[in-house]
Amino acid sequence: DGTNAAGDLSDGLNTFFLLFSGALVFLMQAGFAMLCAGSVRQKNVKNIMLKNLLDACGGAIGFYTIGYAFAYADNASDSKTFIGNKNFLLLSFDGSGGEWIGWFFQFAFAATAATIVAGTVAERCKMQAYLCYSVFLTGFVYPVVVHSIWSGDGWITAFRDDPWQGVGVVDFAGSGVVHMTGGATALVAAIILGPRKGRFYDEDGNPLETPVSFPAHSVALQILGTFILWFGWFGFNPGSALAIDNSVSAETAALCAVTTTLAAACGCVTSMFTDTMIEKSATGEVSYDLTAAMNGALGGLVAITAGCSVVTPWAACIIGIIGGWVYLGFSKFLIKMKIDDAVDAIPVHFANGMWGVLAVGFFADPDLMAIAGYNDFPGVFYGGSGELLLCNFVSIVWICAWVFFLMTPFFVILNVMGMFRVDPLEEEVGLDISHHRGPGYDMAGAKKEDVEELME
Amino acid sequence: DGTNAAGDLSDGLNTFFLLFSGALVFLMQAGFAMLCAGSVRQKNVKNIMLKNLLDACGGAIGFYTIGYAFAYADNASDSKTFIGNKNFLLLSFDGSGGEWIGWFFQFAFAATAATIVAGTVAERCKMQAYLCYSVFLTGFVYPVVVHSIWSGDGWITAFRDDPWQGVGVVDFAGSGVVHMTGGATALVAAIILGPRKGRFYDEDGNPLETPVSFPAHSVALQILGTFILWFGWFGFNPGSALAIDNSVSAETAALCAVTTTLAAACGCVTSMFTDTMIEKSATGEVSYDLTAAMNGALGGLVAITAGCSVVTPWAACIIGIIGGWVYLGFSKFLIKMKIDDAVDAIPVHFANGMWGVLAVGFFADPDLMAIAGYNDFPGVFYGGSGELLLCNFVSIVWICAWVFFLMTPFFVILNVMGMFRVDPLEEEVGLDISHHRGPGYDMAGAKKEDVEELME
Amino acid sequence: DGTNAAGDLSDGLNTFFLLFSGALVFLMQAGFAMLCAGSVRQKNVKNIMLKNLLDACGGAIGFYTIGYAFAYADNASDSKTFIGNKNFLLLSFDGSGGEWIGWFFQFAFAATAATIVAGTVAERCKMQAYLCYSVFLTGFVYPVVVHSIWSGDGWITAFRDDPWQGVGVVDFAGSGVVHMTGGATALVAAIILGPRKGRFYDEDGNPLETPVSFPAHSVALQILGTFILWFGWFGFNPGSALAIDNSVSAETAALCAVTTTLAAACGCVTSMFTDTMIEKSATGEVSYDLTAAMNGALGGLVAITAGCSVVTPWAACIIGIIGGWVYLGFSKFLIKMKIDDAVDAIPVHFANGMWGVLAVGFFADPDLMAIAGYNDFPGVFYGGSGELLLCNFVSIVWICAWVFFLMTPFFVILNVMGMFRVDPLEEEVGLDISHHRGPGYDMAGAKKEDVEELME
Repeated sequence: DGTNAAGDLSDGLNTFFLLFSGALVFLMQAGFAMLCAGSVRQKNVKNIMLKNLLDACGGAIGFYTIGYAFAYADNASDSKTFIGNKNFLLLSFDGSGGEWIGWFFQFAFAATAATIVAGTVAERCKMQAYLCYSVFLTGFVYPVVVHSIWSGDGWITAFRDDPWQGVGVVDFAGSGVVHMTGGATALVAAIILGPRKGRFYDEDGNPLETPVSFPAHSVALQILGTFILWFGWFGFNPGSALAIDNSVSAETAALCAVTTTLAAACGCVTSMFTDTMIEKSATGEVSYDLTAAMNGALGGLVAITAGCSVVTPWAACIIGIIGGWVYLGFSKFLIKMKIDDAVDAIPVHFANGMWGVLAVGFFADPDLMAIAGYNDFPGVFYGGSGELLLCNFVSIVWICAWVFFLMTPFFVILNVMGMFRVDPLEEEVGLDISHHRGPGYDMAGAKKEDVEELME
Repeated sequence: DGTNAAGDLSDGLNTFFLLFSGALVFLMQAGFAMLCAGSVRQKNVKNIMLKNLLDACGGAIGFYTIGYAFAYADNASDSKTFIGNKNFLLLSFDGSGGEWIGWFFQFAFAATAATIVAGTVAERCKMQAYLCYSVFLTGFVYPVVVHSIWSGDGWITAFRDDPWQGVGVVDFAGSGVVHMTGGATALVAAIILGPRKGRFYDEDGNPLETPVSFPAHSVALQILGTFILWFGWFGFNPGSALAIDNSVSAETAALCAVTTTLAAACGCVTSMFTDTMIEKSATGEVSYDLTAAMNGALGGLVAITAGCSVVTPWAACIIGIIGGWVYLGFSKFLIKMKIDDAVDAIPVHFANGMWGVLAVGFFADPDLMAIAGYNDFPGVFYGGSGELLLCNFVSIVWICAWVFFLMTPFFVILNVMGMFRVDPLEEEVGLDISHHRGPGYDMAGAKKEDVEELME
Repeated sequence: DGTNAAGDLSDGLNTFFLLFSGALVFLMQAGFAMLCAGSVRQKNVKNIMLKNLLDACGGAIGFYTIGYAFAYADNASDSKTFIGNKNFLLLSFDGSGGEWIGWFFQFAFAATAATIVAGTVAERCKMQAYLCYSVFLTGFVYPVVVHSIWSGDGWITAFRDDPWQGVGVVDFAGSGVVHMTGGATALVAAIILGPRKGRFYDEDGNPLETPVSFPAHSVALQILGTFILWFGWFGFNPGSALAIDNSVSAETAALCAVTTTLAAACGCVTSMFTDTMIEKSATGEVSYDLTAAMNGALGGLVAITAGCSVVTPWAACIIGIIGGWVYLGFSKFLIKMKIDDAVDAIPVHFANGMWGVLAVGFFADPDLMAIAGYNDFPGVFYGGSGELLLCNFVSIVWICAWVFFLMTPFFVILNVMGMFRVDPLEEEVGLDISHHRGPGYDMAGAKKEDVEELME
């Protein structure tokens, strides 16, 4: 009868929705690969792309074997837990309740967290180190963060009857859970790994007066990657509604599409024009920088990820505008600190991840909170007395502490054992020739004498 | 109960459908970026891609602030209006009735209209001019066209009880509304801006005997762009059914997927082989031209866009075949007129947009018209007495008149003020170095001495 | 009322699901184009991409006119038939029952089968030959295979009341039907066409001691293609559930997403590390090969395609691991046999297609078989007595025999008539200059003197 059919239709519709969303999030791997490949020098393009591909694969294997179990296993007693502990290898899945598709969707997020790091440490990180940390990240570090915020058993989650402070952490699609976790790992790695040769120091180790910018080898790949990432975000954010079989979820997902678009657009425009003005005041020349534009868009996307379902379009614009500034400012701060991020992933993902999580505490609309399935606590700008801001602030501290606490000794040990950074000569030659059997391009065309012979 | 659940499911399903479709249309921005980037010379690749990225952003901001209000606001009195006038900044949206997702879907179309122009004026148009006209286009020019044809208040719309001529304009997914509007703007811009240096005239301004073709810098990017655009069209055309919660809409969307595929395929094959025959008769050599093939496919896609839901598959094939010829013919006509279109966007979007709108007047099947939600007026080939052809012809005249009337003085003024065209030396050097801080590629590989040292 | 609405919703949901899935499969054309383009030498990049584009077009036209009729037309009498014989040009479609969208989805598969061949014969195959065989393949060879296995009238299909051996062939998404058919054609073509000049033999026709590897011209395009293909597979495999309006289909589609992901990941990792170990034992150097990684992933994807809906996640991992080895082994076998496959499509699609079909006979879980709509026969590892393995083995023999029987004389005749292989000088110069009016790239930047003038 009609009711049964509707239940069946619900299952189908929600499964399809997560298949669509997960596939788009998966495609972000291609976006990261193109963005990173375009951003590095030609001699390291194979290396970075192989890392991006292995991320997806390692993420799948790590999240299948242990990651999902650590992240999502709920206990029966309804008490809070630090980490899940069943469903390893998905062995107790029976296919009901959207289990398969839930894993697929969450795997795509885990792979995203891992791949964020790849760009930052590009051009100098050993393959072995990369494999070690990406498995560690997707298999353990990231799942514990997920468990705390997105699982019903988590200690600061919003998804239980008695959330901390009455509301819990509101990080809808993961500005903190995904982007800060990846970005904080990238920050630790960049500090311990040190800058690329010739970026901040000369051959003798003396600091350069002006840092050397290494030009991106292909801006076409960068822009392609940016567009693919933006496209993928329409799975990342609306998909985090997790269901679309009812009017309320539909409204949530639809709002996410709008706020995601506006934050990206405002971040892009703000970052580019601010950069133009800064450069003009320094050099007197008007110029428009692609890197500022595209990373501004990505910064806006990261920043709106936490609040995409609980803020209005105008608030999304403000979040995006500030996101553009956060990107620019943090990027310059890293250079000042001589921390070398080959693709500016730390300003985009870590800094804007923090900003996005905080922004919820200011801009959350209580009506939209209720529609998105949270308790209807208002942000500070809507008269809230700060419980939400506190929760979200604590989640920032928690993610930073957890990542720094685990990853710092991890990378230090790798470094001490000589497993982290490639040999200086290999770095000079580039990783493609030294580790991957030859350069990534061979643009040699037809031989001139053959062409002449043909023309005769 | 079952009925309620079905209502909820409808909301969810339709929202999801427009999220999917809008996301695919958004990805067309990447398609245009790759197609345009591949088509221009290496020295202008950053410039064109930045324009494509800013299109998406400017389109979002323009359509959010004013464009959507101008395009879609219906008045309560049911009278015809020239332009909408409420819902600025989406302030009166309450999220019901698919409002959020409707905006998202329509924004993606607006951004498409703007980006069509970018390619035509590539390699010589100032950034400032581009920003001005793209905001003007998405914020005002395009929304008025949309209002007239797709809003229930429009003066020639099909979507009211008493449409003009009993049927109104049938432009299902926008061969006219989107592609002609963008293409007509491109035509005006190309005429006023003038050809690129060295294309039709020598250094002294004397016409060349044979126009110089500037080679595309990367055919790989062109083909990638073409495929992404074709893929995006499966959102553009089927998505224009706007709903998929019932058998009739489902049939409409499904038919659109079939006709879209066939028109593209026929356009591609026709254009390429016709070009091969023309060249063979001129030079005696058999060769196959990628540009003819890919623009033939795109021409077929533009041509089927108006009628995709109301013509049969065989008619779609004919529309595509003629679309291939329309592309080739108009492309040669522009060269004869010394109008320089850097990516052939005018033949693809303007000429085939016109052909597509006209074709509906000939090929519309009355049964399919009824299924697609129009009055069941037949095209001329189905015994129609021409009301539909008249309506659609009038829409062509209207779009051309409106665009030419507004954009001609707009571009003339920009030109007179020296804000339209870059300096000749900047054009010679290329816009990447002169406006964007350096070339788009750095293909330098490892240093030879380092490689030798490593090999030892 | 509720029941009617649910019926309508089912139509809409299933149509949408196949629109989504078909569009993703269509995008695989872009994936193949990028993968192939990246894999060939720079002088043949236009040629291979034009072939990929024409595949999509020829596939559409061939499958519209005759292919779909041959593949799917059911007779009324319920007897087995060798080939379908109605619905040419889709003329008797009335749009009900998902006919339009069914054609769209199946067309995308047919185009995939054809495009598999393009890469193998790249860099030396004439355009005319390519056009002939791709129409022959999509219009006749492939549809007959489809009819035998996926149509209810087929002689070894699982989809009738009395399937052969009580179960029929289980090839859920087409490891055999699509990938083996394309791959077997590629094998025949490669043998008859012979290797590229300088690959296995010197100028005088004497075999070289070590085969010469021609370097891929752009590894960035290869990886982009790989990611797009993997993304497209989320339409290919889950979409083959064909419906998603009920819990059972939803579970099937969701499981497919999981198994597809895991097989790809395991194939990639296995292939790359095995290759690393082999090379290390030969050269003493540790290196990581992108080609091994990406083709391992693709091999895993092909291998899981037959059984994605009927095997558990752990079985998918094993299928992927073995898929990685099958790829590596068959690739080396082809080199030993001096059969030249420019993109390794034969090991990926033919060899892993066979492995995938066979694997179902071992790993099919009877419960999952029932859920996916098959008779609940178990694979050998689940206590089956081999009926399923026999059926699937027979389908391998049948596909090989049919393809070899038809394509061998076809290619031999083309070859004898001089229509198959390009002239040696044209091959040396590359097909872009000799057949497509010039090279695929023009990376020349700004003139040095102009830049200097600007800088003054």
